Amino acid sequence: MPPPDSGVANRFSALPPTGEAEEQFVQLLRRPGLVIERIVSSGQPSPPGFWYDQPQGEWVLLLQGEALLRFADEDEARRLRPGDWLDIAARRRHRVEWTVPDRLTIWLAVFYGEEAAPLAAAAGAQGS
Amino acid sequence: MPPPDSGVANRFSALPPTGEAEEQFVQLLRRPGLVIERIVSSGQPSPPGFWYDQPQGEWVLLLQGEALLRFADEDEARRLRPGDWLDIAARRRHRVEWTVPDRLTIWLAVFYGEEAAPLAAAAGAQGS
Repeated sequence: MPPPDSGVANRFSALPPTGEAEEQFVQLLRRPGLVIERIVSSGQPSPPGFWYDQPQGEWVLLLQGEALLRFADEDEARRLRPGDWLDIAARRRHRVEWTVPDRLTIWLAVFYGEEAAPLAAAAGAQGS
Repeated sequence: MPPPDSGVANRFSALPPTGEAEEQFVQLLRRPGLVIERIVSSGQPSPPGFWYDQPQGEWVLLLQGEALLRFADEDEARRLRPGDWLDIAARRRHRVEWTVPDRLTIWLAVFYGEEAAPLAAAAGAQGS
């Protein structure tokens, strides 16, 4: 007999070990104009001088951990804790300044708009 | 000086008291073809015989609490715990059989497609 919750996926499944060198991107849903991804960071900031500059809008919810997210048009980074969310308009340049190093930071990211694409494929991201 | 995390909203803010008679719906983002809502339940099942029957797709993530979600085309409800998600296709009839009564259950719901609309306004929901 299958377990009663078969067919349900969980955000905590298949997590990378803490201290993994690369961020992990897992696509949870893809529909026209919509991509939902789980992003797992373990202390990685965006590379120095790197800004995400995306053709699609992005709404993010921090599920676990802690992060500093910086917009190019703001002087100070915003601190995100579990349950915090914010909307990042298309073409608003931003970067992750910091994620807590000793545990995993888990983001839910919802990319939307005609250009919606997974972040891993966001070739619009570029250094400056 | 504003706090460094000003401009960030949190899913745990403005929660209703446990045992509130009505579910609470808070719209977090609305864009063409996309609505993101926080839904807070405190023990309410869907009314007897009631099925959601929505013109839009819905992706849900359970953030806190516990719930049983039943599809009309399945014999058994699926148990959802924090971190569990599932996608509900447009027009796939479903209902909430149960949410844990002694604490709040918090859902993140992403409605998508041309017909995307907040659940509170989903007049397509109907008894049977």
